Amino acid sequence: MQIHTITWTNNRVKIIDQRLLPLKLRYEYIDTVRQMWRAIRELRIRGAPAIGIASAFGVYLGVRHWHGKDPEKFYQRVCAVADYLATARPTAVNLFWALEKVKNLIRSSLTQSVPELKKMLLSLALALLEDDRRRCQAIGSYGAKLLPQRCSVLTHCNAGALATAGIGTALAVIYTAQKQGKKIKVFADETRPLLQGARLTAWELMQSHVDVTLICDNMAGTLMAQGNIHAVLVGADRICVSGDFANKVGTYALAVLAHHHRVKFYVAAPLSSFDPNLRSGKDIPIEFRPPDEVTTFANKRCAPPNLKVYNPAFDVTPARFVTAFITERGIITPPFTAKIKKLLKS
Amino acid sequence: MQIHTITWTNNRVKIIDQRLLPLKLRYEYIDTVRQMWRAIRELRIRGAPAIGIASAFGVYLGVRHWHGKDPEKFYQRVCAVADYLATARPTAVNLFWALEKVKNLIRSSLTQSVPELKKMLLSLALALLEDDRRRCQAIGSYGAKLLPQRCSVLTHCNAGALATAGIGTALAVIYTAQKQGKKIKVFADETRPLLQGARLTAWELMQSHVDVTLICDNMAGTLMAQGNIHAVLVGADRICVSGDFANKVGTYALAVLAHHHRVKFYVAAPLSSFDPNLRSGKDIPIEFRPPDEVTTFANKRCAPPNLKVYNPAFDVTPARFVTAFITERGIITPPFTAKIKKLLKS
Repeated sequence: MQIHTITWTNNRVKIIDQRLLPLKLRYEYIDTVRQMWRAIRELRIRGAPAIGIASAFGVYLGVRHWHGKDPEKFYQRVCAVADYLATARPTAVNLFWALEKVKNLIRSSLTQSVPELKKMLLSLALALLEDDRRRCQAIGSYGAKLLPQRCSVLTHCNAGALATAGIGTALAVIYTAQKQGKKIKVFADETRPLLQGARLTAWELMQSHVDVTLICDNMAGTLMAQGNIHAVLVGADRICVSGDFANKVGTYALAVLAHHHRVKFYVAAPLSSFDPNLRSGKDIPIEFRPPDEVTTFANKRCAPPNLKVYNPAFDVTPARFVTAFITERGIITPPFTAKIKKLLKS
Repeated sequence: MQIHTITWTNNRVKIIDQRLLPLKLRYEYIDTVRQMWRAIRELRIRGAPAIGIASAFGVYLGVRHWHGKDPEKFYQRVCAVADYLATARPTAVNLFWALEKVKNLIRSSLTQSVPELKKMLLSLALALLEDDRRRCQAIGSYGAKLLPQRCSVLTHCNAGALATAGIGTALAVIYTAQKQGKKIKVFADETRPLLQGARLTAWELMQSHVDVTLICDNMAGTLMAQGNIHAVLVGADRICVSGDFANKVGTYALAVLAHHHRVKFYVAAPLSSFDPNLRSGKDIPIEFRPPDEVTTFANKRCAPPNLKVYNPAFDVTPARFVTAFITERGIITPPFTAKIKKLLKS
């Protein structure tokens, strides 16, 4: 089944409301920038590559009915809308990457008329979406070469079709390997607190008839100790020039466990997830989310009232635990810094 | 607040139905061995020391209305009831330890009348309960010496008052240290899938005004990387002569993470949790529990139908990751084997 996480249709953005999966596959239409901001903030759409694309469409939605004629003022309006969207979530760099692209495009095209600039904005968003599809395919092809004919991989959170406009990043590797006839068994961490592994990854892998088994996050170490995991495959929300990277909370513990058990640890992400401005993982801003994500489930409490909760959405994994990054331009192995710098400049 | 996990009152066993915590503190009365078997199997009562005591009372409930007069036949009946209770759960050795004590008592007292033997059975169960209270106190006193004046500890699952007849094992150390005026900050792993950390540990620590913060299991590594954890304190369901031990699933991953971050890793348990017959953790039988513990919450599904699930209730941690065992007879440091053997013989 083709999964359409985000598309442009009848002059509006159409997304899957991912909060409802796997119980309901419901599409939602987005017509305004405010709706898009909320959709990103509330995780109706999530995944670093997908929210990059969503934010580009968001800017277009925010300025398409702007009535002025002055390209300069239009540019100011674009910047204001982009800055607003940038506040939706802090960690995934793809959001800022896409918004930067949008602003640069308009700033460098001020000789055009406002209607023309609006068209260019929409074209850019559509191009980012198409680009992302191709990037996912390329990541899948490069990554599949790393997997043996028969193996078990562990993944965390959702770095699949539901996190991108294409077939995913980490899961693209699995889809591509399976298409090549490789026998891949996947263990999916349920990924507390929001259960993206149980709700999204398990669902989309089952749609594609991938052999998937759900585990609680705290069981991954046990499987590695038994020799049942050949590789860990995760996505990334922001990768520094050093190779330190942020991803869904729990990724760091998996990386330490993989290191201890000599299990390969691969990070699959497009170049749009790399932040050329950050050298070290210490500099990545980490989003903290509300306590009730941990203390309630389906509106039912599962912890005492007034309990203190520590709920970071992401953690940072040092580069030394990464076997390789899988990008749309190929595999990056250690030492990373010079290679990443070169790739980001080219 | 004193927590009465299991007591004997008005000729029946009174337990807290732990499935309902923290939303409801409801007591349940148990009059028959079948009810006791179900209470153990369904985790209304849980925790290795507590289910040991529960099973001793269970045997008494199963034979107290037995009408025969032949001590030999009574002994056979006791064995049959004990064997039935032994099928309730497979991993915690305290269950088998208590049932063995019950059988030995009757086998060595066959000169007594049946009514006398029945009285002896009840006395034994009551003695085990009182013993456990004292053991918890002693574990707390020995363990508290290991904690500095001000520190943060991480605990997993529930090894507290709700897992014993006293103040707990791992949590006894915290309660005692706090009583001594030490400033202890506790991070409690929520402990998927059944959330004993969120539901039970957080609740009982709050009852005693301990500073507790809830985290998802996958956040423990992140806290250790930040230097925010001074020690991990867990209980145990079965400890081998070598020091390998079984505890709630996720304990193994914590042990590897603690090892990597040079965080002390303490296991608090009474001698009744040691199995003199097992040399290696490989020999510990591990209980697998139903998939719906992972795929549903409060009767609401959070994963696709027909999804495969791996759901072991326990995992095994090798002795090499243990800084020390805290028992009612003192602290055991590596190398463990000779010391554990000596302690179990004395």
